[in-house]
Amino acid sequence: MVKSEKLTNVSYKAVQIRDPFWTKYMNLVRDEVIPYQWGALNDRIEDAAPSHAIQNFRIAAGEAEGEFYGYIFQDSDVAKWLEAVAYSLATSPDLELEKLADETIDLLGKAQQADGYLNTHFSIKYPDRRWVNERDNHETYCAGHLIEAAVAYYETTGKIKLLDIACKLADHIDSIYGAEEGKQRGYPGHQEIELALMRLYEATGVERYLKLSLFFIDERGQEPHYFKLEAEQRAERFGRESLLKEGYYHLYKHNYEYNQSHLPVREQHHAVGHAVRAVYMYAGMTDVAAATQDQTLIDSCKRLWDNVTQRQMYITGGIGSNHDGEAFSFDYDLPNDTAYTETCAAIGLVFWAHRMLHLDPHGKYADVIERALYNGTISGMSLDGKSFFYVNPLEVWPDACKRPDKMHVEPVRQKWFGCACCPPNIARLIASLGQYIYSQSEQTAYVHQYIGSETKLEVAGRSVQLSQQTNYPWDETIELAVSPDRPGEFTVAVRIPGWCEGASVHVNGQAVSVEATLHKGYFAIKREWKAGDIVRIVLPMPVERIYANPNVRVNAGKVALQRGPVVYCLEQADNGAILPDISLPEHAALDVRFEPEVLGGVAVITGEAVRGELFGWDATLYAAKKRSERSVSIKAIPYFAWANRGAGEMQVWIRER
Amino acid sequence: MVKSEKLTNVSYKAVQIRDPFWTKYMNLVRDEVIPYQWGALNDRIEDAAPSHAIQNFRIAAGEAEGEFYGYIFQDSDVAKWLEAVAYSLATSPDLELEKLADETIDLLGKAQQADGYLNTHFSIKYPDRRWVNERDNHETYCAGHLIEAAVAYYETTGKIKLLDIACKLADHIDSIYGAEEGKQRGYPGHQEIELALMRLYEATGVERYLKLSLFFIDERGQEPHYFKLEAEQRAERFGRESLLKEGYYHLYKHNYEYNQSHLPVREQHHAVGHAVRAVYMYAGMTDVAAATQDQTLIDSCKRLWDNVTQRQMYITGGIGSNHDGEAFSFDYDLPNDTAYTETCAAIGLVFWAHRMLHLDPHGKYADVIERALYNGTISGMSLDGKSFFYVNPLEVWPDACKRPDKMHVEPVRQKWFGCACCPPNIARLIASLGQYIYSQSEQTAYVHQYIGSETKLEVAGRSVQLSQQTNYPWDETIELAVSPDRPGEFTVAVRIPGWCEGASVHVNGQAVSVEATLHKGYFAIKREWKAGDIVRIVLPMPVERIYANPNVRVNAGKVALQRGPVVYCLEQADNGAILPDISLPEHAALDVRFEPEVLGGVAVITGEAVRGELFGWDATLYAAKKRSERSVSIKAIPYFAWANRGAGEMQVWIRER
Repeated sequence: MVKSEKLTNVSYKAVQIRDPFWTKYMNLVRDEVIPYQWGALNDRIEDAAPSHAIQNFRIAAGEAEGEFYGYIFQDSDVAKWLEAVAYSLATSPDLELEKLADETIDLLGKAQQADGYLNTHFSIKYPDRRWVNERDNHETYCAGHLIEAAVAYYETTGKIKLLDIACKLADHIDSIYGAEEGKQRGYPGHQEIELALMRLYEATGVERYLKLSLFFIDERGQEPHYFKLEAEQRAERFGRESLLKEGYYHLYKHNYEYNQSHLPVREQHHAVGHAVRAVYMYAGMTDVAAATQDQTLIDSCKRLWDNVTQRQMYITGGIGSNHDGEAFSFDYDLPNDTAYTETCAAIGLVFWAHRMLHLDPHGKYADVIERALYNGTISGMSLDGKSFFYVNPLEVWPDACKRPDKMHVEPVRQKWFGCACCPPNIARLIASLGQYIYSQSEQTAYVHQYIGSETKLEVAGRSVQLSQQTNYPWDETIELAVSPDRPGEFTVAVRIPGWCEGASVHVNGQAVSVEATLHKGYFAIKREWKAGDIVRIVLPMPVERIYANPNVRVNAGKVALQRGPVVYCLEQADNGAILPDISLPEHAALDVRFEPEVLGGVAVITGEAVRGELFGWDATLYAAKKRSERSVSIKAIPYFAWANRGAGEMQVWIRER
Repeated sequence: MVKSEKLTNVSYKAVQIRDPFWTKYMNLVRDEVIPYQWGALNDRIEDAAPSHAIQNFRIAAGEAEGEFYGYIFQDSDVAKWLEAVAYSLATSPDLELEKLADETIDLLGKAQQADGYLNTHFSIKYPDRRWVNERDNHETYCAGHLIEAAVAYYETTGKIKLLDIACKLADHIDSIYGAEEGKQRGYPGHQEIELALMRLYEATGVERYLKLSLFFIDERGQEPHYFKLEAEQRAERFGRESLLKEGYYHLYKHNYEYNQSHLPVREQHHAVGHAVRAVYMYAGMTDVAAATQDQTLIDSCKRLWDNVTQRQMYITGGIGSNHDGEAFSFDYDLPNDTAYTETCAAIGLVFWAHRMLHLDPHGKYADVIERALYNGTISGMSLDGKSFFYVNPLEVWPDACKRPDKMHVEPVRQKWFGCACCPPNIARLIASLGQYIYSQSEQTAYVHQYIGSETKLEVAGRSVQLSQQTNYPWDETIELAVSPDRPGEFTVAVRIPGWCEGASVHVNGQAVSVEATLHKGYFAIKREWKAGDIVRIVLPMPVERIYANPNVRVNAGKVALQRGPVVYCLEQADNGAILPDISLPEHAALDVRFEPEVLGGVAVITGEAVRGELFGWDATLYAAKKRSERSVSIKAIPYFAWANRGAGEMQVWIRER
């Protein structure tokens, strides 16, 4: 990798995925999640929590009578659906779906007010309370999702109607917030618009959007504190009424760590507060840092990255260990059984990592994307695409989910949620998966992720076709066909994952030494390429025993099994109840085999472990006698596939002996 | 032990304790806790939460003007103080203290209403709302504590004034509740009066009190449900207002498991709900069962006992693992780090066990008393008697006490509490310790606990002086002098603790075979006794490694150290931070030595264990490489003495390798 090169992302729409692992997921999103979500938005799903989201827009557009219903951020569900549809259309054109999207966009256009404002909660319910409570009201949050949808829909279809709506809305917001005289020095209570404005800036080239995003980021946490001023302005009283109306959320209103406004962002050294807010903000900061090359902001992004990934991330890529506030906790506080690890937070980590990778090209960012993709994000969805987890624990004893301090942990996925953030977020992640695979620079084609796919890049003045074939993550081998339109020298840089030892690379059957040119996680092959060249990458995937930093006290004496990027777990369905009683000898052989019939086809790990005898203890709670032990066969399955066979115990971290 | 013999308890006032371990605690209660508590009740302690308890009585007595202040059960603090004073006076006469108590009793007398009613909260604040909400109002709870104090004060001093007050109050309550026409079929929302009425019945011989206690027990949980009827009667609304006024407690009001009224007591198979309410009720049930010999009630007591001690009790004798509702959880749910294990609940377990022992003479009950006495009760008080724990966790990482789901766990004891239940409860337990040591029957003198003390019993028509000398629990040897006023045959039964293997007993230097006559935990020595006979009991106290039932998932692979009745723990002060990283080899030698300078003089356990190397992990959260290990010396201290050297990590259960 040439250090000074600037990496440019390759869009999802330039990538065709044909992959045994991911195509299945993309089809699920297209065939199950998006239609289901549309049904939910229109309140056509029996037994699902009411949404009313489309109806809210109808009312705001004057096409229907009625009252607003739903969360204050209900509009964002429609935006997320549109965004997922946009990605899906890019790879699976569907005229009927596109028509539905166009009609929805027309409706949004009618609901938009003359000054550009668009938020049904306030248009319908509190037209006189626009922009008076940015801390709580999610107006910029909803706008951010709308903007993201607009950019995606424009990129996919070339249609500008939604982009126009988004620009008008962004311009309106720009007229409200800013450093200029007469504007408010506010910033979002739920960050999201920062990164959305950067997408809008990239799509339109309008500097105003970059400037507004930068303003939001710079202004955050400055004194006098905006949320305090704003609360005084509306004579807010903190008391009984707000407790009654807002329940738990009430407690966070005056805790500025919750929404990361406790300090200016450049002074933030530890990730704190609501994890989704945090990573959305970090992603926006990274976008702005890349666009402005502001070194203090770059430093801040890197420092926060280190804190999150070196101190506060589960092995699954899950983040936010604290149920209370759906939040980061303190360093190394990563309980397995009370983990919150919201699906959306792991997805947000992917968004952020993707931006960090382009700000500071290093395989460690793509490693985290891979970790989250194969573990803590897709664990949020059942294998049939019909039910979802918000919370992704690493250890579950279903009986204990009755305990109030574990009530947030569900042992089986739920169909739909009143607060429907995670399902559409998984949908947009998977539908846009193509964007995480390749990047390009002047002289180099980068391969970040090993997913069967094709793309065409512009490198060294050539059009280069890249084509991957692989059965990753189950198989170790990736075949990458490199076909420039005419022969010539350039570089193909392929990521050697952090988990991998002894990777080998062959070009047209000739071994090339990986060690020599491995730099920041990438192996750069600089040579004369011609059409039909084949790079064969072998990433050995023995079962790895992973140990946690000793400060993670809950994992003391425990080991997690990982093969390739996939983290494994034990389930009661395979191993019986009382999983903590199982201990794995330090040198026990562990075998891998692919089981096409199991959980939609996964590689399982088997081995011999040890269990204590369970009988004879019925009337004994404590005894000085150690139980006799016996050898047992264990079977571990990929973590992402847990809880697809009913409720039962599960654990990722296994005692080692 | 002769099976048909009825055991009679030997009162605290008949026992003089002179014990290296307990005299210190009794002096602390006398010299620190009782005076401090008096100061608190009179609001004379700086920095302590206001009490107003005495002032409430002054107002109710017409001696002062003002408003009631405090919890609805504030009166009970005064009663508990009087009860502790009564016990303390029995062993440490103190004319000044007795005068203070007499004056307080006079004040209570003046505050009592003509019909016998005595509760300052309602007399002052809501005179028209007496007996309308037994579920929440703690009227019988406060009455129960008053009755207990009255009986104790009468027993110690022979003075009947407070007993008269208590009888008038009990008679008044008897006029309110009962099965008879015109009475209400209610029962306590916080059980306590059931056992108190039984004490009053024993002290006065008035059958009415037994009958009322039996009524409360029989009526509980019957349908139609009294608390429901009562709520309808007062047109209670369950909603915002009650949420605002009562916070958390509001949630328990309609959860009848919380106060064990979900089922008739004879149908209760599992201990559920608020642990203190539960064990106070079980104690009352046991009293009534013993008095009535009602077999279904006896069965119910035994069944609940088995559930608590075989499924829901910590190794420390702590009970109630659930912070939410200060409650029992489900079987085997005994988390170490989020344990609630209220000091009062462990004390209540002692009360109950003491009654079970007399209902069904078996050493297992005395074993639980011992377990709680040396561990989970006195852990609630600092070694200087000046600060207290409500919550007694078995594992603490102080940083984690910031987590909302561990916020109830304090890493250091607190000075005093607004809701001051635990400190006075420890005071009355310790001040009345004498009652747990001996019992007698027609032909047998029983020694349940090994505490340096003297008493005189009536056995086989003789007056028998018993005198124990021991340095228990640190030393293995107890010398028991048995001196009948004239020689004769009778039995001395000494408990061989459940934890003990290889106990030996000598009478006047002659070994007697323990195995032969060990029955239900007691070794019965039937012989011709004469003045000056010496029984020497040796209870070998090697360090025991204790293992938990495999269903207690959190203790998988872990071991607790116990020596004699004392459970040990590791503290950061001795072993450095990151205690979970320590693992103890299965066959590591463990040494014991008494350290007179440490923690007021305790036996400590030392040994060699293993730790992983900690360096080199700063930037690494997960790695495939196992850390190298090194041998470390560890030191374990008695659990009851933890947190006397500042905040730090602590754990009872240690990983075994």
